[in-house]
Amino acid sequence: MTEKIRIGIAGYGNLGRGVEMALARSSDMQLVGIFTRRDPSTIEPMGPDVPVYALDTIEGFRDRIDVLILCGGSKNDLPEQGPALAALFNTVDSFDTHNKIPEYFAAVDESARAGRHTAIISVGWDPGLFSLNRLFGEAILPEGATYTFWGKGLSQGHSDAVRRVPGVRAGVQYTIPSAAAMERVRSGERPQLSTREKHTRECYVVLEEGADAKAVEQAIVTMPDYFADYDTTVHFISEEELRRDHSAMPHGGFVIRSGQTGAGSKQMMEFSIKLDSNPEFTASVLVAYARAAFRLHRNGEYGARTVLDIAPGLLSPKSPAQLRKELL
Amino acid sequence: MTEKIRIGIAGYGNLGRGVEMALARSSDMQLVGIFTRRDPSTIEPMGPDVPVYALDTIEGFRDRIDVLILCGGSKNDLPEQGPALAALFNTVDSFDTHNKIPEYFAAVDESARAGRHTAIISVGWDPGLFSLNRLFGEAILPEGATYTFWGKGLSQGHSDAVRRVPGVRAGVQYTIPSAAAMERVRSGERPQLSTREKHTRECYVVLEEGADAKAVEQAIVTMPDYFADYDTTVHFISEEELRRDHSAMPHGGFVIRSGQTGAGSKQMMEFSIKLDSNPEFTASVLVAYARAAFRLHRNGEYGARTVLDIAPGLLSPKSPAQLRKELL
Repeated sequence: MTEKIRIGIAGYGNLGRGVEMALARSSDMQLVGIFTRRDPSTIEPMGPDVPVYALDTIEGFRDRIDVLILCGGSKNDLPEQGPALAALFNTVDSFDTHNKIPEYFAAVDESARAGRHTAIISVGWDPGLFSLNRLFGEAILPEGATYTFWGKGLSQGHSDAVRRVPGVRAGVQYTIPSAAAMERVRSGERPQLSTREKHTRECYVVLEEGADAKAVEQAIVTMPDYFADYDTTVHFISEEELRRDHSAMPHGGFVIRSGQTGAGSKQMMEFSIKLDSNPEFTASVLVAYARAAFRLHRNGEYGARTVLDIAPGLLSPKSPAQLRKELL
Repeated sequence: MTEKIRIGIAGYGNLGRGVEMALARSSDMQLVGIFTRRDPSTIEPMGPDVPVYALDTIEGFRDRIDVLILCGGSKNDLPEQGPALAALFNTVDSFDTHNKIPEYFAAVDESARAGRHTAIISVGWDPGLFSLNRLFGEAILPEGATYTFWGKGLSQGHSDAVRRVPGVRAGVQYTIPSAAAMERVRSGERPQLSTREKHTRECYVVLEEGADAKAVEQAIVTMPDYFADYDTTVHFISEEELRRDHSAMPHGGFVIRSGQTGAGSKQMMEFSIKLDSNPEFTASVLVAYARAAFRLHRNGEYGARTVLDIAPGLLSPKSPAQLRKELL
């Protein structure tokens, strides 16, 4: 009964470190080890006595890990690791390339079923908690419109795009939801909003020596896909200012359902998060869903799942009776 | 495949009418009839061609109803109807006497299991969607505090209490969350808040002719349990003003989880609703969970359940594959 859920971490970047810290606050779980593609001797875990192993030795841990939390990236790591590791372990991951989720789900599902494992994919806040709130919104208020706003927060993909511009030495990009657009949504008018109306983008850039600021700014604000459809502001700052003011990874966002019932009653549901640390929060969501993966597997529910398939009670260390008494 | 879910409504007050209106927006469901303890000929359904039957004939409808939505009150109707009707039908109800939920759950569970039915109890927003958000908050951010604020909204129980005061002809009571308290919570400081600090109460009262306003006000603001622990304001208005300005049933509220991860990153999750019509919204939640009850029963999952036990995807008419593609 009091046996702990044995967790492995595959990948040790910001997200893996976040999982390690979240596990330290989860008394029903224990960390078996960190698995990395790098040389294990170069990894310094935050906690004392946390073993680090080479990822290619992980098959030897099949009997020692209940759930493996995959902390690799969606672009290069998970498309391969997700299906491969779900054949060997119960897994939880944060695959977040929205338009590739159906094909990723199918690959992980096939592999998890064959290995009689449970794999929960696309866990985090978007996809994840935001998806849940989009679902609750449209299921409860079928007549209505759903709005997702992101930020204010640091966007990794857009920061990478800024840093690829010739003349940029370093930089970050913040996505900012439009207060005016959110006001209109909250008023219940259900506006049609263009991309430009919903968010603005703000870049903080350190120039290479001798670079032409005007040219860099122009290259950024006109960049297709990333910036051309938005109102973008570019601020030039020093390397020191970048380090001092822009090294945290805050994020946040809003899911709003604006609906109508009866003869015209306006009904509004809103979910929002405001995060000092995006990777630490995502890691905390992964750890809660690892608990669910362990329980589903114990009940013989094999294959891939998403947050939409998981009864919320499975996320809590408390018993169903305790949850009914304390939280309902 | 395209067979509709056949729904019955037991009880036809504000909530029952809300369910009837919500069903009209749910193309995968059909309303079989309204069941009432009153004389059926005195009931006027909103929709045309909606049959009304005496509640004591409902046993004859066992083969014609997939899910019965119980729209009676928690104080006098459900404690008896819940267990009795779960023996005969799959049911969904909005039982909301928080401290009696464990005993109500046990009674409904026993009866539903014996009858091989599925009964989802305590559905709505609190208990219901707010319970879910309290669960997500503490499961994802175990280090933290959860705050529930209600309002601004009309409280039925407190309005009844006002109307029982001698000298009061009619009246309503609004519960109002303290903006200052919410600001402190959102700042991340995790304050200890007294009852008085969290909410204020506002009463709109029509006096009986010749009643002593000062005495009525005093009786209200000092009433134990209901008002003594709050800052309460009493406004005296005319019967016409009451009818004109206070006959809607708005409500709303907030669940905020203020937590911490890592070495001190503040993380905030917030869920809120703002409702023109409280009963119509609660009814909409009941209808979505009726869909889940139907599916659970089809899968042989008998007994009582709460929102904490229900995979969110079961609320939507869409298929799991469609939900993954569109909402995840």
